[in-house]
Amino acid sequence: MVKIDLNCDLGESFGRYKLGLDEEVLPYITSANIACGFHAGDPQVMSQTVNLAIQNHVAIGAHPGLRDLEGFGRRRMQITPAAAKADVQYQVGALQAFSPDGHLHHVKPHGALYNMAAGNYELAKAICEGIYVVDPTIILIGLANSELIRAAQTVGLPYASEVFADRAYEADGSLVSRSQPNSVITDEDVAVQRVIEMVTQHTITAIDGSSLEIIPDTVCVHGDGIKAVAFVQKIHAALNQAGIEVAAMNA
Amino acid sequence: MVKIDLNCDLGESFGRYKLGLDEEVLPYITSANIACGFHAGDPQVMSQTVNLAIQNHVAIGAHPGLRDLEGFGRRRMQITPAAAKADVQYQVGALQAFSPDGHLHHVKPHGALYNMAAGNYELAKAICEGIYVVDPTIILIGLANSELIRAAQTVGLPYASEVFADRAYEADGSLVSRSQPNSVITDEDVAVQRVIEMVTQHTITAIDGSSLEIIPDTVCVHGDGIKAVAFVQKIHAALNQAGIEVAAMNA
Amino acid sequence: MVKIDLNCDLGESFGRYKLGLDEEVLPYITSANIACGFHAGDPQVMSQTVNLAIQNHVAIGAHPGLRDLEGFGRRRMQITPAAAKADVQYQVGALQAFSPDGHLHHVKPHGALYNMAAGNYELAKAICEGIYVVDPTIILIGLANSELIRAAQTVGLPYASEVFADRAYEADGSLVSRSQPNSVITDEDVAVQRVIEMVTQHTITAIDGSSLEIIPDTVCVHGDGIKAVAFVQKIHAALNQAGIEVAAMNA
Amino acid sequence: MVKIDLNCDLGESFGRYKLGLDEEVLPYITSANIACGFHAGDPQVMSQTVNLAIQNHVAIGAHPGLRDLEGFGRRRMQITPAAAKADVQYQVGALQAFSPDGHLHHVKPHGALYNMAAGNYELAKAICEGIYVVDPTIILIGLANSELIRAAQTVGLPYASEVFADRAYEADGSLVSRSQPNSVITDEDVAVQRVIEMVTQHTITAIDGSSLEIIPDTVCVHGDGIKAVAFVQKIHAALNQAGIEVAAMNA
Repeated sequence: MVKIDLNCDLGESFGRYKLGLDEEVLPYITSANIACGFHAGDPQVMSQTVNLAIQNHVAIGAHPGLRDLEGFGRRRMQITPAAAKADVQYQVGALQAFSPDGHLHHVKPHGALYNMAAGNYELAKAICEGIYVVDPTIILIGLANSELIRAAQTVGLPYASEVFADRAYEADGSLVSRSQPNSVITDEDVAVQRVIEMVTQHTITAIDGSSLEIIPDTVCVHGDGIKAVAFVQKIHAALNQAGIEVAAMNA
Repeated sequence: MVKIDLNCDLGESFGRYKLGLDEEVLPYITSANIACGFHAGDPQVMSQTVNLAIQNHVAIGAHPGLRDLEGFGRRRMQITPAAAKADVQYQVGALQAFSPDGHLHHVKPHGALYNMAAGNYELAKAICEGIYVVDPTIILIGLANSELIRAAQTVGLPYASEVFADRAYEADGSLVSRSQPNSVITDEDVAVQRVIEMVTQHTITAIDGSSLEIIPDTVCVHGDGIKAVAFVQKIHAALNQAGIEVAAMNA
Repeated sequence: MVKIDLNCDLGESFGRYKLGLDEEVLPYITSANIACGFHAGDPQVMSQTVNLAIQNHVAIGAHPGLRDLEGFGRRRMQITPAAAKADVQYQVGALQAFSPDGHLHHVKPHGALYNMAAGNYELAKAICEGIYVVDPTIILIGLANSELIRAAQTVGLPYASEVFADRAYEADGSLVSRSQPNSVITDEDVAVQRVIEMVTQHTITAIDGSSLEIIPDTVCVHGDGIKAVAFVQKIHAALNQAGIEVAAMNA
Repeated sequence: MVKIDLNCDLGESFGRYKLGLDEEVLPYITSANIACGFHAGDPQVMSQTVNLAIQNHVAIGAHPGLRDLEGFGRRRMQITPAAAKADVQYQVGALQAFSPDGHLHHVKPHGALYNMAAGNYELAKAICEGIYVVDPTIILIGLANSELIRAAQTVGLPYASEVFADRAYEADGSLVSRSQPNSVITDEDVAVQRVIEMVTQHTITAIDGSSLEIIPDTVCVHGDGIKAVAFVQKIHAALNQAGIEVAAMNA
């Protein structure tokens, strides 16, 4: 049976600040990327989010980001590979402390760290090494066809190729920049169909009309609003109806 | 053979800020309390300090503190037991990520967290629980005869009673407050003799002249200046000469 | 004509985190206490909040807090008077930079800083001095009958005595601790009547039944939820109906 | 009489962390760039540094940086012009609060903010606007011939062109990148001669041998070590001997 994972960023609240409909989205996803305190999240939020994920039988993963709470980890920062490695190691260890068996299922870098690493092999390798030294069985989630995936292969880390339901692709497999026209797929039915095509056919139509090979292990979904949660329900149902099993990936 | 541990706070640098003579003091201590990023330390400093400790055959421990970099974790903060537990869990996990075998030898709370917990059982228990859920074999270092030791006993965590070479004791085993006269022992020879007395006789003369029972497992020493390091060398030599083995404690 | 000010904490968002119904509450208040980046707020939020307040003809004030974003400035911290003075000076200056004429109408300390200073003269005096050296014409808002008011008198700072619609008072003028029964007035009509009594009669019934003298300059209201905003509308209307002018206080 | 200013970064300590020989270098400089808490400095350090500068008759300026204490403001961050404007406004206001007359002599952006703005007109303009709205008489210190100077001219802010004694210049007036050979002038006598040439002749030999026009108002010097302070003494003496007055620039 064809399988796919649905991953979602969770645990993004901080202190008095509440963000995300974690409880609402958890029943429909299979992997939780939990913020680790650098760009979002705090120790108590991490503890509660791990518990919520377990109650919903959702796999627990770390979502390490740049140390930029004000910018929510979305502003690129010129950090060295050594800093990236240590920052990831630190955040992965911190989240492990809240996992009942001390083990994490996956790690997905957040925001600007993810985007920078997708196109920068040295940075991607440092991130993978930071994960590997903590636990070489953790699955790295990275953009399909990106330097993150290549780095995981070199370092010897299990990996999962991530695709986006609502984003257009360039012919080379990279995402069309949000500053370009038609970079975002706004028609939900089209978005769902694109995911099913990627999962079952291993192809997707790029923005230039060409056909691109893409083998997805996990689809990025969002829980930061009522509309986003409704879309997760919709895609979950559509995948099931298409005979695709929604389940966390294995290492 | 009588044994005693010498523990010292290390890894207190942050970014461009350098603090402590870590390399100079390491040859003379047996347990390193490594800052975890809340009151001092950053991921790269943690990584380097763990490596330095290993090269010097010094046991690696976490030194979790209050989230107050500006106050160096020395300002009391009214945190809930739930926050204390999560903060300790987070910091212990973060340091574990830098330990080659993923294991820590001990945890010693830092500064105001240590002092508050010494006199507050609820807080002490929360700290011990935060350590226990991460790894129930980690040794808690707490003030001898304090609530931290009582909490470790209740929680089932191994513990080590800490004594201070340069501080006077009240008859009840608590430290004489620094605001009181004669709270600090300034004569180094007297300080050394008091440590030897505690280690070999299990007694110490309290500030009121009475004799107090105290069974030390570890002595707190400092590496934050040339004079401090010289005193560590001196006490190390004096202990050896008195036939006392200086070695890290066992769980 | 009898006059009273309604003050409200605003500008408590931070980066991606949104907090408070600032736009909704602004039409009904007369003084805005704007967070300055230590416990809440960031420079862009401060800029936007100042502009919003001006558009609503609401007086602009600083709301300096403890440097504890995670705890929202609500956790007591043992800071020295020198630190309190410098922290207040810094935050007041930072907000002044966003005021079109470089002047602030008032300063109200936030959360634990306000509560600690209400009962600690040395801390209250340091806060008042921090304000005074920046601008001796700024009005300090402090708890009526508290050390903050006494400190403002000594330092020579204009001040405004603050009362709470929804809180019970001890016979000595202090607030009944939230941990005590009946500390919070939950009946909105009673709360409104108590404010009108304080404003027009200069008395309030304390929790022990005795009558307490209290001369309010400003009433603390909240904008952190739909219910809170509705209560501000209600109290504003009731004050007007009672022939009381709702207007910012003068120095 | 020919005049030149010597500016130096000061007030870079933070909490328990001490950085820079502020007292030692102050007698030889004429403008102090004081850190404002984002990349270095804290409110008490700011207060003390302003007082020290005044005692030494040194002009007080703000040294706003990126909000990156761990990276000391030296890591480039992709911030929007709106964020840069607000961040500068905030930090300039915060330092003004410690100036006895509420006025600052100058503002010099720090580290990566300075370097990014030197080559990015939009960012440079936002920084200048942030200063201008606080006080249009403050002098901006920017790299000679850079976008910061152009932006100050457009915005209508007084400015001072900064030159570096120890750095090689490209033919277009930009600094040779530190990653290139011969980017740093290590011979102190050559460095001093280059400064005297710039100040008196308004020319400097670029790295390609061509002659470059440069009209310096201020020279960047350092106080972060014994050797750096000795060089400041040396350059101060050499300038005096060459009949050049060392004095803070006027708006």
